[in-house]
Amino acid sequence: MFTYEFLYDFTRRAFMAMGCSSEDAGVISDVFLAAELRGHASHGMLRLKDYYELWKSGRINVRPDVRTVHESPSTAVVDGDNAVGMVAARKSMQIAIDKAKTAGTGWVATRNSNHFGIAGYYAMMALKEDMVGICLTNANPLVAPTFSISRMMGTNPVAVAIPAMHQPPLVADFATTPIARGKLAVAEKKGEKVAFGFVQDKYGQPSDDPSILRSGGSMLTLGGDRLHGSHKGYCMSALVDIFSAVFSGANFGPFVPPSVAYLPVLEKKVGEGTGHFFGAMRIDAFQPKEEFLGKMDRWIETFRSAVPAEGQEKVLIPGDPEREAEARIMKNGISLVPAVIRDLEEIAEALEISFN
Amino acid sequence: MFTYEFLYDFTRRAFMAMGCSSEDAGVISDVFLAAELRGHASHGMLRLKDYYELWKSGRINVRPDVRTVHESPSTAVVDGDNAVGMVAARKSMQIAIDKAKTAGTGWVATRNSNHFGIAGYYAMMALKEDMVGICLTNANPLVAPTFSISRMMGTNPVAVAIPAMHQPPLVADFATTPIARGKLAVAEKKGEKVAFGFVQDKYGQPSDDPSILRSGGSMLTLGGDRLHGSHKGYCMSALVDIFSAVFSGANFGPFVPPSVAYLPVLEKKVGEGTGHFFGAMRIDAFQPKEEFLGKMDRWIETFRSAVPAEGQEKVLIPGDPEREAEARIMKNGISLVPAVIRDLEEIAEALEISFN
Repeated sequence: MFTYEFLYDFTRRAFMAMGCSSEDAGVISDVFLAAELRGHASHGMLRLKDYYELWKSGRINVRPDVRTVHESPSTAVVDGDNAVGMVAARKSMQIAIDKAKTAGTGWVATRNSNHFGIAGYYAMMALKEDMVGICLTNANPLVAPTFSISRMMGTNPVAVAIPAMHQPPLVADFATTPIARGKLAVAEKKGEKVAFGFVQDKYGQPSDDPSILRSGGSMLTLGGDRLHGSHKGYCMSALVDIFSAVFSGANFGPFVPPSVAYLPVLEKKVGEGTGHFFGAMRIDAFQPKEEFLGKMDRWIETFRSAVPAEGQEKVLIPGDPEREAEARIMKNGISLVPAVIRDLEEIAEALEISFN
Repeated sequence: MFTYEFLYDFTRRAFMAMGCSSEDAGVISDVFLAAELRGHASHGMLRLKDYYELWKSGRINVRPDVRTVHESPSTAVVDGDNAVGMVAARKSMQIAIDKAKTAGTGWVATRNSNHFGIAGYYAMMALKEDMVGICLTNANPLVAPTFSISRMMGTNPVAVAIPAMHQPPLVADFATTPIARGKLAVAEKKGEKVAFGFVQDKYGQPSDDPSILRSGGSMLTLGGDRLHGSHKGYCMSALVDIFSAVFSGANFGPFVPPSVAYLPVLEKKVGEGTGHFFGAMRIDAFQPKEEFLGKMDRWIETFRSAVPAEGQEKVLIPGDPEREAEARIMKNGISLVPAVIRDLEEIAEALEISFN
């Protein structure tokens, strides 16, 4: 078990050793650790090596000039200057919040960025400003549109955070695929099959093989097959891709650059880097603050009172599982698998910083 | 077969006979017929009787004062004054478009409205202004959150329309459930079972019975079950409900008023009427117009070139099926089932207008 403070400090020192400013390294560490605390280890310390390798191969800019390149009263386009994703994303969301302060809402599309960790982190930045926060990003293509076998989209997540008064905020943060890619990797390592409805083989036939992506297979969109509404999941993934990349001028769909160094830089590009999209909406641009927050309390209380199905304990509000994980992990510490610990030790040695 | 012009004229005269202004009756007819043309007959002439019955029982206002009650540079809240949904919705979307002209984007939450037909109609209003259009609405509760048997949400649709240059616009318009309720009704009438994954019984057990809603059953969210991501469909439905009702001050979740007169007015209310949410985003608030439109062309062409799965002809872009339906139906005419024709004849007689 590791403490939050230990891993935060290590991550921060690692990024500073790579050349990041102390401020940027702090932002990056904050997001890495938020993933661990919220129970999304797939976006936590496990990923540090990918970031390190991208830096080592010169594919990421640790001294970026993240800047607004186009704007209107309620919108901006940000060029991330090939920054570590967290640095471009946090600044972009801050611009969205600042726009909302004067225009009521703020909307920022960001190009030339990279993998940014958990989308929920940026959406939640809005909460302390009494705003609703929104964050979308595209990602490496693994997912086929309905009726197709071509990997055209990422797991393209949607995150929305909405403040309440006495209730904790509602925080929805979900990929637009039935499962995250990480779950396939776990099943593969255990030698287990997965349920049907997650992946298909290279001909487009249903598959329960978690390693199928290695042999031309692809992930399915939310809904699984056409009969069960996969075309709606395809719509959602497509919209996230367009908002992230067409609005910003980033690469879309199959042209999103790899977030790992062991995959080569793509030959063709249709824009700059990875794309994100951020929104901030001042709640008092719609309702008096107390009314909005009180009504969200009532919404949450109403849904908490839904009758559980047979065998189920309770109905959850989006954000409940992550908040429960955070309380538990903050108390008990962060558990890392041996392979991740070895990675961190190797990085520490290479960067000549301590890990103990 | 009926012509577009005949049904448009009949619908317009029917609403004028109910007391609507000629302008409002035109708007309502436009949306009714758009549903027929786009192949969504479930939202077309079939519904006219529901609207008529609501009017007859004094539950809808045909001379409404639809007005902005709160605003910021990029937002507004509109009170629909219990109007026919189309009248409140069209005006609200126009306000969103007008806000976008000066602020870059416009966002309108509407309360005290009613059933408004197809969400895609309002999203598409933005296209001719070189804007992206968005429309959400909540609806009568039929859908249970993951782990629950309580009907807490409607089929809560999402519509987004995005212009392109040479390609037709991308228009996504989808319910956040695997299927529309209308499909259950069709299967029930034919005495057929439905696939598993659409509905559950009153205990929360999987069911293939399309009439299960009559015996305490409920519809499932997109994803179907927890394993296949139903909690993500639940997040989407919940977000549509909150944007439509908490932002506007309308009724949310289980308190959304019935859109048919044979169901009684609910005893409890938590806001005013049904809620909608509209967005308009000027594309040149993000990218120079030509660049945005050209890039959407490339996005669409890239996805059209995706390799079809075995046995599939081609990959579709959101909006393709509706556009193909529109071309076919505009040419061949609109087909109505005998029961709907009888309804229209009855309404004509009651309103003392002609139907022939």
